[in-house]
Amino acid sequence: MGTKTVIVGGDAAGMSAAAQIRRVAPSAEVVVFEKTNFASYASCGMPYYIAGDIASHEDLLALSAQEIADRGIDVRYGHAVEEIRPGARIIAGRTRSGQPFDEPYDHLVLATGGTAVRPAWWSELEGLFTLRSLEDGIALRTFIDEHRPRRAVVIGAGFIGLEMVESLARRGLEVTLVGRSPHLLGDFDRTFAAPVYDAMRHCGVALNLAQSVQGLAGDSGRITHVETDVERLQADMVLVATGLEPSAGLARAAGLAMGRSGAIAVDDQMQTSRTGIWAAGDCVEVKHVVSGQKVHKPLALTANRTGRIAGDQVGSAVVGRSSAQRFRGTAGSLITRVLDYGLAQTGLSLGEAKRAGFDAVSFERESRSRARYYPGSKPLKTRIVVERRTRRLLGAQMVGEEGVVGRIDALATALFARMTVDEVHHLDLAYAPPFGPVYDAIIDVCGKAALEI
Amino acid sequence: MGTKTVIVGGDAAGMSAAAQIRRVAPSAEVVVFEKTNFASYASCGMPYYIAGDIASHEDLLALSAQEIADRGIDVRYGHAVEEIRPGARIIAGRTRSGQPFDEPYDHLVLATGGTAVRPAWWSELEGLFTLRSLEDGIALRTFIDEHRPRRAVVIGAGFIGLEMVESLARRGLEVTLVGRSPHLLGDFDRTFAAPVYDAMRHCGVALNLAQSVQGLAGDSGRITHVETDVERLQADMVLVATGLEPSAGLARAAGLAMGRSGAIAVDDQMQTSRTGIWAAGDCVEVKHVVSGQKVHKPLALTANRTGRIAGDQVGSAVVGRSSAQRFRGTAGSLITRVLDYGLAQTGLSLGEAKRAGFDAVSFERESRSRARYYPGSKPLKTRIVVERRTRRLLGAQMVGEEGVVGRIDALATALFARMTVDEVHHLDLAYAPPFGPVYDAIIDVCGKAALEI
Repeated sequence: MGTKTVIVGGDAAGMSAAAQIRRVAPSAEVVVFEKTNFASYASCGMPYYIAGDIASHEDLLALSAQEIADRGIDVRYGHAVEEIRPGARIIAGRTRSGQPFDEPYDHLVLATGGTAVRPAWWSELEGLFTLRSLEDGIALRTFIDEHRPRRAVVIGAGFIGLEMVESLARRGLEVTLVGRSPHLLGDFDRTFAAPVYDAMRHCGVALNLAQSVQGLAGDSGRITHVETDVERLQADMVLVATGLEPSAGLARAAGLAMGRSGAIAVDDQMQTSRTGIWAAGDCVEVKHVVSGQKVHKPLALTANRTGRIAGDQVGSAVVGRSSAQRFRGTAGSLITRVLDYGLAQTGLSLGEAKRAGFDAVSFERESRSRARYYPGSKPLKTRIVVERRTRRLLGAQMVGEEGVVGRIDALATALFARMTVDEVHHLDLAYAPPFGPVYDAIIDVCGKAALEI
Repeated sequence: MGTKTVIVGGDAAGMSAAAQIRRVAPSAEVVVFEKTNFASYASCGMPYYIAGDIASHEDLLALSAQEIADRGIDVRYGHAVEEIRPGARIIAGRTRSGQPFDEPYDHLVLATGGTAVRPAWWSELEGLFTLRSLEDGIALRTFIDEHRPRRAVVIGAGFIGLEMVESLARRGLEVTLVGRSPHLLGDFDRTFAAPVYDAMRHCGVALNLAQSVQGLAGDSGRITHVETDVERLQADMVLVATGLEPSAGLARAAGLAMGRSGAIAVDDQMQTSRTGIWAAGDCVEVKHVVSGQKVHKPLALTANRTGRIAGDQVGSAVVGRSSAQRFRGTAGSLITRVLDYGLAQTGLSLGEAKRAGFDAVSFERESRSRARYYPGSKPLKTRIVVERRTRRLLGAQMVGEEGVVGRIDALATALFARMTVDEVHHLDLAYAPPFGPVYDAIIDVCGKAALEI
């Protein structure tokens, strides 16, 4: 065809775009520039790789280098793109060994991802980590294997922080979790998620919540302490998991429009403000299905999906068709496992709903994962956020040892359908004693809301 | 208030109605006539009680006799209502000891439930059972405890038959399952549900599917054999689980309108054709949310819910208000556990969809219950039924060792919202490696359908 697509970034979004282009336009030329030595890896699996549940980092590769080549995708590893020249349709950069390179393109997809936030107190010390790329994961596991650290401090109580607390505790480390918020995952407070807080303490994890880190201390270039506004914590290793910011510098420098979140602005087909340039994944902001606002929600499914949509656009352009694929919104749906518990959320928290301008109220209910009389039944807690006037469901959180995963998805489905709590309360859901009570947790909590709102 | 409500039947629907009446109208007089000696029991728990997972039948009582009395509900146990005189507003019947009784009412709720089908070849033999009332369950368990039967034949491969196959196998019996359909649960064929067929065989269960029972044989009044059109099966006990028919004789005799399914016709507030008489539970037919047709789907949630709606109507009438509660439809959502597997369905099967007049097609997909690389990941199969022209989801079946329960609920939610496969494919569902792949089973199968339809 003589049409070349260049993709910057070879993880979920970039490789999804590449694969979709080749699916739609099998003869299209696709070149992916990836700054690390790995492409197409499952970054969400890294905590389990570090814990030792997954033997090798190669198990985390969705496609091996050979499989990528077999699909006709040309990945240039260790190639950091440093500049886009949209007028000339050229990108340029430098390899790890310092060799400059440049490449012309007809279509460009930016899948530059996100960067782990490095707070102001960051300093270059051995034993200090963030967890973003597979190389970060390998470095972390290698450090544990080689140095056998005894005390770890995890900074940040979001899902990466929580998964790493478990991972490190299971590697036998004494773990302290430091979080600025008094709650886990932003919205899982000590009352709602009491069993998770208890389980962490029973595992020997120290919970230093509602504390902020003031600085780090080291000795001979190696980390030794974390200073919070409350105490000084000994540490042989520290993981900073305080968030992810969009890697949008390249796009900004090229003059592409940015969103208010600081991520690249795109339409629902992942088109940037400049014709011929698409962007997808953790570097873009997308529409929230509940608030309608543009948000930066760097999550795996959205990265894969927006990559595929961008690829469908490009592939369709190459073959002269138009693509019907549109991004229909994120609900910020999330699940994470902490010790034996699943913690999940979808839509807006109460705080987010109020900040988005909703007159919102929340309802909580404890249910069971199996019928009351059925052996092994576990508590299952649900909180929902509801708009008072319209009775519309705006969001939900769940926590429990079993039965969380699909149920949060049913609530996510209700959000996309803009259902009221009355409608959810009257859903006909599947029941049998080994799987829940007759009035399922979801039905039950929405019934409470329908009655009390 | 001087208003008396009589309820006929003290299981899920009747007791839900009674409790709701007392909730809405705390001083209302409520009398429940229950022909057995138990009210408010969890009949769905009986297979696990018979298996021995649940120690006592008392664990299956949602409310004890004392708790029922404390709620101000007057239950007359062992009272079989035999006649309604709607003109005079009186019911009449006979106690177990043969004493006639009658009772006037202002409002009447019929919650007469269903009756296990007794095929033409039924004969009164010791060791021959159906499983409907708690008394049936107690009789079955007592028989096993006392007679230690070695060989059981279960006739009927619906969810009660399947649960009892597991229950009896776990009690150490050699079990043969005889089913008229070649498939389990009507629609779970050997290809789609292969691991379930295999697990049953590994457990020593003989699967005599696509066979029809011709008769039973006994010796000295005790069952010894089941004759099918293919072979003669030895049996020390036999469970007949070939379906449930609505117990609508009382209503029919009183001149109430019947539906085409043979169950009592009611509107969405459980009002029968006669003012002052409501009906709820397994004796009524209700609207199917997908087909819009009236169907007889005797399932626990619908029984509880329609009972509560009827009670809300009556209670509201007593206090002179109007009730806003409406039944919004059944999807026939169902889950059952067979050995280690969950089998679930919601909405229409392909055959049901075609019979209901849809130009329907089905799609299947095998996914995983956890990320591919995550330890313990199990296959999770999903089949969906889709209307070709509108691309609307009409139904789904799932089978797997984990992750079935909430996911079928997400699909049920999509049915209530009348979503297309494209809409389901673009849902933002929760992902983490211990709980599924990035593209969840639901998203994946709807994506396949969206592409291929």
